[in-house]
Amino acid sequence: MKNKEVLVREALLGSNAKVAAEVRRALLRKKILGVNLMSSPGSGKTTLLEQIAERLGGGYRLAVIEGDIETERDAARIRAKGIPAWQITTGGACHLEAKMIGRIFPEIPPDLDFLFIENVGNLVCPAAYDLGESLRCVLLSVPEGDDKPKKYPKAFLTADCLVITKSDLLPILPYDLEGVKQEALDINPRLSVFVLSALTGDGLEPFLQYLVRFREKAISPDA
Amino acid sequence: MKNKEVLVREALLGSNAKVAAEVRRALLRKKILGVNLMSSPGSGKTTLLEQIAERLGGGYRLAVIEGDIETERDAARIRAKGIPAWQITTGGACHLEAKMIGRIFPEIPPDLDFLFIENVGNLVCPAAYDLGESLRCVLLSVPEGDDKPKKYPKAFLTADCLVITKSDLLPILPYDLEGVKQEALDINPRLSVFVLSALTGDGLEPFLQYLVRFREKAISPDA
Repeated sequence: MKNKEVLVREALLGSNAKVAAEVRRALLRKKILGVNLMSSPGSGKTTLLEQIAERLGGGYRLAVIEGDIETERDAARIRAKGIPAWQITTGGACHLEAKMIGRIFPEIPPDLDFLFIENVGNLVCPAAYDLGESLRCVLLSVPEGDDKPKKYPKAFLTADCLVITKSDLLPILPYDLEGVKQEALDINPRLSVFVLSALTGDGLEPFLQYLVRFREKAISPDA
Repeated sequence: MKNKEVLVREALLGSNAKVAAEVRRALLRKKILGVNLMSSPGSGKTTLLEQIAERLGGGYRLAVIEGDIETERDAARIRAKGIPAWQITTGGACHLEAKMIGRIFPEIPPDLDFLFIENVGNLVCPAAYDLGESLRCVLLSVPEGDDKPKKYPKAFLTADCLVITKSDLLPILPYDLEGVKQEALDINPRLSVFVLSALTGDGLEPFLQYLVRFREKAISPDA
């Protein structure tokens, strides 16, 4: 028999899935690609978004929802790049949920191309919550080590792409790049894998092209 | 009115606190210091434990409980240092709980000096769960960035000490060391703060001395 905790959790996930489906439909109807970025704290989600803002902001209309336990720090960094940003502070909750995105929805400009959602820094809990995104990216930074995919499999299993960040540290840290890619692909063979440094810009271009192509496919009438 | 989720959570935390108090009493009765290590994935908890094993293992009897979602990887690394280690794989749960420690308790040698518990890599959820430790350490690695304490305050608020790890990267990464210390101390002025590199060994000695002193105090009859 399932205990009370499991039953409550299943009910919460069920109601989250319903709201997420509504958010996804509403975004795609406006030709907006929702992108959910998940990772450990400090893997470089905000720095990657700053680079996306600079490099994609000229040709596309972007907005960002930032999730954190406390502080407006990340939203302030994005706004400094001229991109509209909303900060959700969860107060203590370890992940974002679809209803939090739904609450911001009325404020989102209807003519966007991309809505990025930076989840709370946590490689575990966010993986269980669909936010209504069409593209889910898991980030893993080089200094976190190359043994992480099998230790935290759900994030890799549920993602569409893996972005290995802070590649500028590859020459000075012990790191088996091919090994970590293979381990992630063993968990989820459908993963698209990118290796980049948001600090130096190395490897960013293929990831930006992937974002653009993924959006075109997602909003096409045949999708 | 509180919703069902909050009520279930409070009941779980209440029952966890009771088990944790029993674990703590049982450990201290045997003059064992329980140490709970919490951090993001990849902050260097296992590497720090490997160093502790090498440097403290000669004079003190150590054992380690490893918490992970999946894999025996971390326990295998500790056993390779000649230290007994138990691996808890939570299957999906994002933190350890006191009852998981209690289940291992009968297997723990009674003549230990230190029982280290490496929590699941997660800077959020583990902070809410007392495991029966007497000393709680939060680790924060330099590459995670210097903006983390106020974004994840509970881990810093509930810890006895902060260990800033991977200090070998300080010369090459932008990082405000004094700023991050001050921010952590603003949240919790009682924190003891250490800066070290488990890779080079720099700064380890003061932390090891702190562990030894903390144990002596905790097991003294006046404690």
